[in-house]
Amino acid sequence: MSIKEMISEHPQVGADFNEPLAEAVKHAMYCAAICNSCADACSAEEADMHRCIRLCSDCSDICEATYRVASRRTSGNVTVIKSILQTCIEVCETCAAECEKHDNPHCRRCATMCRECAGDCRKALDTMNAHA
Amino acid sequence: MSIKEMISEHPQVGADFNEPLAEAVKHAMYCAAICNSCADACSAEEADMHRCIRLCSDCSDICEATYRVASRRTSGNVTVIKSILQTCIEVCETCAAECEKHDNPHCRRCATMCRECAGDCRKALDTMNAHA
Amino acid sequence: MSIKEMISEHPQVGADFNEPLAEAVKHAMYCAAICNSCADACSAEEADMHRCIRLCSDCSDICEATYRVASRRTSGNVTVIKSILQTCIEVCETCAAECEKHDNPHCRRCATMCRECAGDCRKALDTMNAHA
Amino acid sequence: MSIKEMISEHPQVGADFNEPLAEAVKHAMYCAAICNSCADACSAEEADMHRCIRLCSDCSDICEATYRVASRRTSGNVTVIKSILQTCIEVCETCAAECEKHDNPHCRRCATMCRECAGDCRKALDTMNAHA
Repeated sequence: MSIKEMISEHPQVGADFNEPLAEAVKHAMYCAAICNSCADACSAEEADMHRCIRLCSDCSDICEATYRVASRRTSGNVTVIKSILQTCIEVCETCAAECEKHDNPHCRRCATMCRECAGDCRKALDTMNAHA
Repeated sequence: MSIKEMISEHPQVGADFNEPLAEAVKHAMYCAAICNSCADACSAEEADMHRCIRLCSDCSDICEATYRVASRRTSGNVTVIKSILQTCIEVCETCAAECEKHDNPHCRRCATMCRECAGDCRKALDTMNAHA
Repeated sequence: MSIKEMISEHPQVGADFNEPLAEAVKHAMYCAAICNSCADACSAEEADMHRCIRLCSDCSDICEATYRVASRRTSGNVTVIKSILQTCIEVCETCAAECEKHDNPHCRRCATMCRECAGDCRKALDTMNAHA
Repeated sequence: MSIKEMISEHPQVGADFNEPLAEAVKHAMYCAAICNSCADACSAEEADMHRCIRLCSDCSDICEATYRVASRRTSGNVTVIKSILQTCIEVCETCAAECEKHDNPHCRRCATMCRECAGDCRKALDTMNAHA
């Protein structure tokens, strides 16, 4: 099932489909899920992972709001989408920097996901700034 | 990026990995995103889609809670997971029945996703009842 | 600002306003916020609070879905509301039982909130069963 | 039940309690609930409220992420909190400007809530910038 195709079927989209923004939506959706799982896995580690739990929780919440808002196409809300993409980049990079310090498979996977999501949000933001 | 592999990397999982539950997590994550997008697309249709908007919104919220709770593996919460899976099945089937009435590409896609998610939650529930 | 008055202003509500359901919505909203905060506070405690973090996180997610779904009044979705109220009762009582084991102010407050939310959801469910 | 007192009971808070930030948390929590309800009420109106549904949905999602992130106190995440507060101000003012166009009780209440939330987020942001 593809969230990108779903967005392209919105009645107001048509030829105006923004591919990089749809890619950011897809990866923010994944990143919300991966960070939610990493926060849980970190809380079960023997080491004290309190900072990683906190940053993964924040990243999950913001990625979720990002993908929900950025996947809507009714009537436009460009300034807000640009602002939440910017916030999403910041939280993803902060979370990735913390996860990269820990030698757990779930932290490595989470760091990779966060870096990828930040990169996609940056590309989407560039496209939206170019159109403005 | 795979949420199923992520769950398998949780420190308390190991050989005990529940594949059907992880499949339900994955599809509830997608279903939350698809229903959120369908609610938005429905609000932009010329026809009055108020019932479809409402049911897609409910389905998105419950699928999201379902995947977040069911992807956690720390310390167990089996009774609650079984209960939210049951609620998820009900909302997915209610939403699918409504979306199937509308001849929009996004409603068709959403109905398919909801039926698939309900089926996966039912399989996960069967596994958990068998283990109990 | 009152979420209960807000619900009473919905165009389809009028004389049919369900007071116990609105009370459950209000307390599920608070409970989502209190549990989110308790999970965070638990992760900062010196003691190992992994089970409490997990149950508070689950309770927050389910309370949030509960209040969002149960506050909608467009076109009805009674079976689903009853199902999520039932799930909410279970997660609130599970979380309260865990928080009651810990002698932290935030855990005591969270346990009280969860018990109150469970009680309100039970009253709302009784009303809906009586109407059915 | 008070989310502000709850935050003050976090083990890392003590004398360092940021009152304006806690006030922003409380009102972002309410605003998430009011906007979720307004989106639903708008979809039941006879007039075409598609833009209002969309903006209320966006505002609800972002307010929710804002209050969840800004209520955490473990280990600090100041840059991210400042960024999401900024995004929250933008979405609240955009949503208020739309709701103010409609003569429905729920839209009037929602507009008031959004303006208040934006004001509280701005005060919280000022405090955080002053401390930096």
